[in-house]
Amino acid sequence: MELLEQYILQKGTVLPGNVLKVDAFLNHQIDPVLMQALGQAFSERFKKTGITKIVTIESSGIAPAVFAGLEMGVPVIFARKKKSVTLQDHLYTSTVYSYTKKESNDISVSKAFLTNEDTILIIDDFLANGQAAIGLLEIAEQAGAKVAGIGIVIEKSFQQGRSLLEKTGIPVYSLARIASLENEQIEFIRED
Amino acid sequence: MELLEQYILQKGTVLPGNVLKVDAFLNHQIDPVLMQALGQAFSERFKKTGITKIVTIESSGIAPAVFAGLEMGVPVIFARKKKSVTLQDHLYTSTVYSYTKKESNDISVSKAFLTNEDTILIIDDFLANGQAAIGLLEIAEQAGAKVAGIGIVIEKSFQQGRSLLEKTGIPVYSLARIASLENEQIEFIRED
Repeated sequence: MELLEQYILQKGTVLPGNVLKVDAFLNHQIDPVLMQALGQAFSERFKKTGITKIVTIESSGIAPAVFAGLEMGVPVIFARKKKSVTLQDHLYTSTVYSYTKKESNDISVSKAFLTNEDTILIIDDFLANGQAAIGLLEIAEQAGAKVAGIGIVIEKSFQQGRSLLEKTGIPVYSLARIASLENEQIEFIRED
Repeated sequence: MELLEQYILQKGTVLPGNVLKVDAFLNHQIDPVLMQALGQAFSERFKKTGITKIVTIESSGIAPAVFAGLEMGVPVIFARKKKSVTLQDHLYTSTVYSYTKKESNDISVSKAFLTNEDTILIIDDFLANGQAAIGLLEIAEQAGAKVAGIGIVIEKSFQQGRSLLEKTGIPVYSLARIASLENEQIEFIRED
């Protein structure tokens, strides 16, 4: 998506360790005009797949997800992150390891909002090692919900997440795919 | 705001201890159509006050804030919550005590995104004891930013937050004001 690539090039910065900092428009300060465009792009791709709910994780997935939800006419659920979740009967839970933060978080979704009658679209801000998306897939599985697709804002294609998710057979749609951050240069994979 | 009051009456539940549960449309599952309406209401009230940025706290403030930001044509910053923040030179920080969770969280905003040239609108999902809003006011003060208003989705008017904030002289605009949750009955304050 060209608009997103422009934002990344103009407002993103590359830090040591292949870290792409996008807190100027995505995960600390948020640009609502861009978020609306991202939501429209996800809707355009998935609107004919029978989605009943969008599922994301707090916090940075929420903004693109609510605009996608508005476009598609469906509610958005954000999984909550907690250091430790007391086992509760009314929650679906999964454990997500963050390579960036080097810590595990339990994520949870209330059983009240996700059932085996749902067809969901998973949306997240980043796809790197794929652990967050896999955690959401586990929650969908616990609910018996069908997953019609995974929508990602920025994919670091040089990490393992994409290939892990592709093994599930679920369509992965990333709005920007980064081939490399070597030497602090941002290189995109362009698809036609 | 009538639409919001309808949502609260139809989809909210009152739990013991004056807790209003609105996780069906605001703070776990999110209704994007309602969020857009909330954003428009905040914009309508504050659009002539010279707002340059909206500031909220993760996670439940983000959805109404991004729709307000889209309407008003300004970026949204969400303050990050952490159990403990290593003192960092490039962050404004404040400590917020949650009476609900009985814990303190440090909240922080990057100095890169808030300066003394900004006029901000603070948006949050709930106003109860006012601690979150006061934390954001402290961050605004550290930045030297002017605060033009505080926009709240649901105010529990029987708790101290409203009166604490009114002492600052900053306009507080709540889209739903709850007078009482006694006996599991939701009573609103209606303003004309």
